[in-house]
Amino acid sequence: MDSTQQQAAPLEETQHLLLRYQNIRFQTEALCAPLQTEDYVVQPIVDVSPPKWHLGHSTWFFENFILAKHLMGYELYNPRYNYLFNSYYESQGERVFRAHRGNMTRPSVEEVMKFRKHVDQAMVAYLASHPIPEKVRNFIELGLQHEQQHQELLLTDLKYILGHNPLFPTYTNTQCPSSSSLPELNFTEINEGLYTVGFQAEGFCYDNETKAHQVYLHPYQIANRLATNREYLDFMQDNGYEHFEFWLSEGWDWVQQLAIKAPLYWHQIKGKWHQFTLSGLQEIKLDDPVTHINYFEADAFARWKKMRLPTEFEWEVACKQLQATIPEQANFQKSGFFHPSPANHHTQLFGDCWEWTQSAYLPYPGYTQAQGALGEYNGKFMVNQMVLRGGSCATPKTHIRPTYRNFFHTDKRWQFTGIRLAKSLF
Amino acid sequence: MDSTQQQAAPLEETQHLLLRYQNIRFQTEALCAPLQTEDYVVQPIVDVSPPKWHLGHSTWFFENFILAKHLMGYELYNPRYNYLFNSYYESQGERVFRAHRGNMTRPSVEEVMKFRKHVDQAMVAYLASHPIPEKVRNFIELGLQHEQQHQELLLTDLKYILGHNPLFPTYTNTQCPSSSSLPELNFTEINEGLYTVGFQAEGFCYDNETKAHQVYLHPYQIANRLATNREYLDFMQDNGYEHFEFWLSEGWDWVQQLAIKAPLYWHQIKGKWHQFTLSGLQEIKLDDPVTHINYFEADAFARWKKMRLPTEFEWEVACKQLQATIPEQANFQKSGFFHPSPANHHTQLFGDCWEWTQSAYLPYPGYTQAQGALGEYNGKFMVNQMVLRGGSCATPKTHIRPTYRNFFHTDKRWQFTGIRLAKSLF
Amino acid sequence: MDSTQQQAAPLEETQHLLLRYQNIRFQTEALCAPLQTEDYVVQPIVDVSPPKWHLGHSTWFFENFILAKHLMGYELYNPRYNYLFNSYYESQGERVFRAHRGNMTRPSVEEVMKFRKHVDQAMVAYLASHPIPEKVRNFIELGLQHEQQHQELLLTDLKYILGHNPLFPTYTNTQCPSSSSLPELNFTEINEGLYTVGFQAEGFCYDNETKAHQVYLHPYQIANRLATNREYLDFMQDNGYEHFEFWLSEGWDWVQQLAIKAPLYWHQIKGKWHQFTLSGLQEIKLDDPVTHINYFEADAFARWKKMRLPTEFEWEVACKQLQATIPEQANFQKSGFFHPSPANHHTQLFGDCWEWTQSAYLPYPGYTQAQGALGEYNGKFMVNQMVLRGGSCATPKTHIRPTYRNFFHTDKRWQFTGIRLAKSLF
Amino acid sequence: MDSTQQQAAPLEETQHLLLRYQNIRFQTEALCAPLQTEDYVVQPIVDVSPPKWHLGHSTWFFENFILAKHLMGYELYNPRYNYLFNSYYESQGERVFRAHRGNMTRPSVEEVMKFRKHVDQAMVAYLASHPIPEKVRNFIELGLQHEQQHQELLLTDLKYILGHNPLFPTYTNTQCPSSSSLPELNFTEINEGLYTVGFQAEGFCYDNETKAHQVYLHPYQIANRLATNREYLDFMQDNGYEHFEFWLSEGWDWVQQLAIKAPLYWHQIKGKWHQFTLSGLQEIKLDDPVTHINYFEADAFARWKKMRLPTEFEWEVACKQLQATIPEQANFQKSGFFHPSPANHHTQLFGDCWEWTQSAYLPYPGYTQAQGALGEYNGKFMVNQMVLRGGSCATPKTHIRPTYRNFFHTDKRWQFTGIRLAKSLF
Repeated sequence: MDSTQQQAAPLEETQHLLLRYQNIRFQTEALCAPLQTEDYVVQPIVDVSPPKWHLGHSTWFFENFILAKHLMGYELYNPRYNYLFNSYYESQGERVFRAHRGNMTRPSVEEVMKFRKHVDQAMVAYLASHPIPEKVRNFIELGLQHEQQHQELLLTDLKYILGHNPLFPTYTNTQCPSSSSLPELNFTEINEGLYTVGFQAEGFCYDNETKAHQVYLHPYQIANRLATNREYLDFMQDNGYEHFEFWLSEGWDWVQQLAIKAPLYWHQIKGKWHQFTLSGLQEIKLDDPVTHINYFEADAFARWKKMRLPTEFEWEVACKQLQATIPEQANFQKSGFFHPSPANHHTQLFGDCWEWTQSAYLPYPGYTQAQGALGEYNGKFMVNQMVLRGGSCATPKTHIRPTYRNFFHTDKRWQFTGIRLAKSLF
Repeated sequence: MDSTQQQAAPLEETQHLLLRYQNIRFQTEALCAPLQTEDYVVQPIVDVSPPKWHLGHSTWFFENFILAKHLMGYELYNPRYNYLFNSYYESQGERVFRAHRGNMTRPSVEEVMKFRKHVDQAMVAYLASHPIPEKVRNFIELGLQHEQQHQELLLTDLKYILGHNPLFPTYTNTQCPSSSSLPELNFTEINEGLYTVGFQAEGFCYDNETKAHQVYLHPYQIANRLATNREYLDFMQDNGYEHFEFWLSEGWDWVQQLAIKAPLYWHQIKGKWHQFTLSGLQEIKLDDPVTHINYFEADAFARWKKMRLPTEFEWEVACKQLQATIPEQANFQKSGFFHPSPANHHTQLFGDCWEWTQSAYLPYPGYTQAQGALGEYNGKFMVNQMVLRGGSCATPKTHIRPTYRNFFHTDKRWQFTGIRLAKSLF
Repeated sequence: MDSTQQQAAPLEETQHLLLRYQNIRFQTEALCAPLQTEDYVVQPIVDVSPPKWHLGHSTWFFENFILAKHLMGYELYNPRYNYLFNSYYESQGERVFRAHRGNMTRPSVEEVMKFRKHVDQAMVAYLASHPIPEKVRNFIELGLQHEQQHQELLLTDLKYILGHNPLFPTYTNTQCPSSSSLPELNFTEINEGLYTVGFQAEGFCYDNETKAHQVYLHPYQIANRLATNREYLDFMQDNGYEHFEFWLSEGWDWVQQLAIKAPLYWHQIKGKWHQFTLSGLQEIKLDDPVTHINYFEADAFARWKKMRLPTEFEWEVACKQLQATIPEQANFQKSGFFHPSPANHHTQLFGDCWEWTQSAYLPYPGYTQAQGALGEYNGKFMVNQMVLRGGSCATPKTHIRPTYRNFFHTDKRWQFTGIRLAKSLF
Repeated sequence: MDSTQQQAAPLEETQHLLLRYQNIRFQTEALCAPLQTEDYVVQPIVDVSPPKWHLGHSTWFFENFILAKHLMGYELYNPRYNYLFNSYYESQGERVFRAHRGNMTRPSVEEVMKFRKHVDQAMVAYLASHPIPEKVRNFIELGLQHEQQHQELLLTDLKYILGHNPLFPTYTNTQCPSSSSLPELNFTEINEGLYTVGFQAEGFCYDNETKAHQVYLHPYQIANRLATNREYLDFMQDNGYEHFEFWLSEGWDWVQQLAIKAPLYWHQIKGKWHQFTLSGLQEIKLDDPVTHINYFEADAFARWKKMRLPTEFEWEVACKQLQATIPEQANFQKSGFFHPSPANHHTQLFGDCWEWTQSAYLPYPGYTQAQGALGEYNGKFMVNQMVLRGGSCATPKTHIRPTYRNFFHTDKRWQFTGIRLAKSLF
């Protein structure tokens, strides 16, 4: 369809978009409120981007893809920012080598905030005054979804920054609620059969959730909740990290080379295991879900249990059977303590940890990569990563759904990642 | 079942096994005949093992898993050989660090041949005189299949060794047959529906081919033959290696960092592309299948064609539809020229190149990893690799079948790997 | 001598020390005035420490070696700071791995400034009220010299930080004076004979300048000024970076691997060479001394000239002959533009660039390494580095003398390093 | 001087050269006699070249620099050999990347021997029939000295190859003579004063031994023999490898990163220290000189002893005072057991171990690097290495003299390196 023929959005819809724009952009900055200026700058590992960079990059996304292309007369805040804040869009030109993001002390935080304000004002003006073509509206929507993804990364990245400082600074004083009545681990049985998976609802989804398609599942069982710290400690105390039998070959190499003994952020202090949380260093809570483990650890734990991880489709089908909607009590980003808490009344499918699945991140049948920059969003990463499902305590609540496909390399631990067990009945 | 209760093999079956043992063991040594002593020793990259190591390792497999465990009174040829010739079996103790295989000048080739003879004599005696329990028979069968896998690796590894020597030594003088009547590229359509995949026949299969199970396939088309050098040259001449749009992100990094311009073994000499083959350096034959390309290159080529690679199940279902048996004219190891040749009368499904599929190497539903050493054979590698189907000109003909799952990391090129295109009709 | 028997300093001397303490400590902070908070935090290469770290480390030096040991009742500002701000003193316990200094966002700059104030107040109180034993006085003097060394590092490190930012931020607006009357390059002849080298004067020196001792020099000539950008450009335009003949083997490897084409901070913009200075990106001034070149480059340039670099003793002897005192017009740190300027009226022996010598950094005859932490100051670095003599535009004027031995590895370029030519007459 | 005007050698001198040529070339091959073909091929670390490469490279030296340039009508044995056997001569064109020498299985050992014979025949013919210009004679002499250097490297390299094989193969069955009457460690005092160092005798020397020049030495003492295994074990048992105080900073990093606990080739077996020698694995002989230690270890041992290593000039002056000639009983290569033996009647200055000195490898006053390939022989390595003096049990006896300067990087241990202690009296 020619873009000039595209239908402009009705006023109401545009107003709704404007409101969402303002809320989401505000929320990003609100998440940064507890930071000191210094915290915005560094990149302790390549995976972790400086908070300042997240603020600039998500803003560049709107400036580069919306304002520069669709707002007549818009002037770039600073033409060098394309070089500084482009993440990985080859189509958008050269950029700071990723590992050097943490060397860029300028623009300063203050300057980045001015850049945000500049872009926000232009966006608001644009949204308020124009009939926005559908294609642009969709790209703005993508920009908002993108900003929400970076809200989660902001949290996990600053956790890494603070959690690797010997002073163990606190991000928030809100204390995680303590464990109450953890349900027994039990398993729901799912029948074999043909199921439809992938996004079919109204509203936004990423291209990697399409096309919705049929899969045949063999009978299986899936756990009613995430694996807990208590269960993971059992694995550790059974010398799980010392027995090759539980590990994939690449996982075993990883354990050996880095002398891994526990999940990320765990510290043994005077014989007791502690964990760095965004509320500081705390003794391990046994009923909390184990988190900050990578695929190798999740897989090894499951083998030790003589079980396995679910596939992404097993997860999705079970999710749809177990709950129609995301529960009110889900422990999303909003709650303010940013730590997975024990399963009380719900299944922990959303709002606690991203759940490693046994599915590689690959295109669905009928998937087609978009042309141009949009095509670089998801498709080019579809190799050598595993799918995670659910959504964590750091995920914005309005950003999640049962068909969402998150993906990370098998050795990554800095996200809020967890384990849900499954068993074959086949 | 208790091993003492296991049924011993009838005489005929044992005799058959003995014959296969002798043939296969002989064939390994026959493949080495053209080598000079020096060629047996080196390891130019970690992936490539010294031919001498293959000879020792496949022998160790029989000594360690059969003779030492089941032949009463058998004495190890040399107890240090477990350290030298164990590949990756954690359960079998410490071993030479893989990257150091190429530093081991001793035992000499002559000594390794003595080791082979020693083990062969004991194996023959064992096979001739014993009623062999089924479990042991199965392990011997595995040892033979294992030896055949190493026959292929021997060929690809020595190709790497000779092909990276500035003198470009020749392994065989047999010339590849020249192109005759390459069929036009066309596509077979496969209907959507439920299909059974995985091994269901009589005889041997690897654990990774089980359980046979159902998959739902959406409609697709699949090519009648492999992509040719001519087609791949078109991709190169269309600057395929310079356009990020065709590449997965990790593939693009690989191209950039190593300044890749062509498949492995290709050399541009006075403006003409040549290729090192086991018969020496030759001008590229345009109708031959392109080979020695990795997953990234296969995937990029397919995108450039606006198509994709098939999944492993699409491949398997198509294979079963297209041909019931492996054709007589298939270009397997036996033929003696060890180079994929143009599609004349057959589909090139077997005996030319291993075909990259868009499927990650993961367990089938209901797969269970065996206990002990056997469990280390396949299961622990099920992550971060892609499945290849078919079988190459270096694969022993008696070793292959439609359900066979080969697997390599996405950046590997030293195997005879090729491309079969597919398209979604969904 | 027992420390209790050590002679306390007379009041005057203590007052002088107090004044120097206050001046030098103030100067460190003054150098930081133009920085934004973000600039204090990062470590783009291992050699470059975050400015914040310099502020903390030089303060830790006084707290740890003076206050904690000699001021009764002194309480550490924060016991974790030993871990954070110890540089390389094995005797003082564990410390942040050097390459991780740039990941430490806390303590914040503000907090580090409080730490400085806390220590300064205690030091002032200590200096004001105590008869200070000589040994302690000497250690305080060392602390001040140490702080001055870090003043220079602060400048070179922040130059690296700003100079590798695509926005090329300016540190100072003071413009370097332009070239006036560059003297012709000529050579002073020094006779062969026995000379005494090493520190023999009153006052402070580092242990590596002792013992003063005799050396026999063969006749040589030494240049009256530093090599200029004009001369270095000639080398570049004569393809100096492409001809292996001029290079040490390790230097040639360095040039090839990193594709080096020019000194550090040089950029070719629209065909003209520019240089990042602390006053921003500027066109190369042809009469300025070439700077930010490493030993390999200095050596290659000299060979291209069919000359060589002087030894450290040739330099020292020539220095003593050429000028008795450091000239008033020397271009030291104080001048405020922090860039070497052309030789007008003086020899450029001090205050422009550190001058690479052809001498390895090794102990003098009779050198003995002190016991304890003091012994770690210099002695343990006496291997695989080259001596530089003179002092740069970033060196505090009161910190320099003809016997001073600076030292860096042969591949380092981030200091203000330059070239003085010499010739053998032997 | 024009080469045509150069004086041809008198017949006698040419005959002498011919004889030396034949002897030395023969000796290289004799050293290889105990090897199996496989031993000739590998390169377990970059420093260690395959024996086959040494055979080819030393032959290439004569072919490339003598025959190809001076024997009219000489045809290269194989033009590709320049690429295969050039070591580091940039002036002689491209070559196999050093780290890939061990991947070159061709030419085979047999073929390399043919190459040697081909070149030897041409050299003999050339030497027998021509009046040889002095310049060429000098280059032939250099070729012979070069071949002798490679004889030593051959031995140390094959020791590394055999000593890192889990079968610990034996090179020779000759047993090292056992300790007899080790002299007490005592020290000779050398007076301060001006001494002449560097080569002044008749005959061949390397350019790095010139010019002979004067140095002023301060008074010192030097040990009458090398440090023994017994003394080194004391250092180890006093936890020398665990105390940073004894180590240079770079040495301490090396110890920590590689978890070094003992010299190279030492193995603790059932509580007893053993050492791999060319006669196999043997219990440590306490009176033998400690060997296979690097500069860091030598320096740390000396510090632990509260002494130091001598400088190269202290060594040379002491050497000249202590013995006019190389003693008959010196333990050179010829003796056939290739292992340093205890000091019986001599000072161990020659024929036991190369002795680390505290001198960096730098040019002497008045040194000028030759033009062309000759200039690449020594001069370009004069940085970041330390000088060793003496000569080891693997050095050809006719190859050594008091002014010889050997040099290695500070972390290398695969040569026969040892320790002579010194003390300052200044």
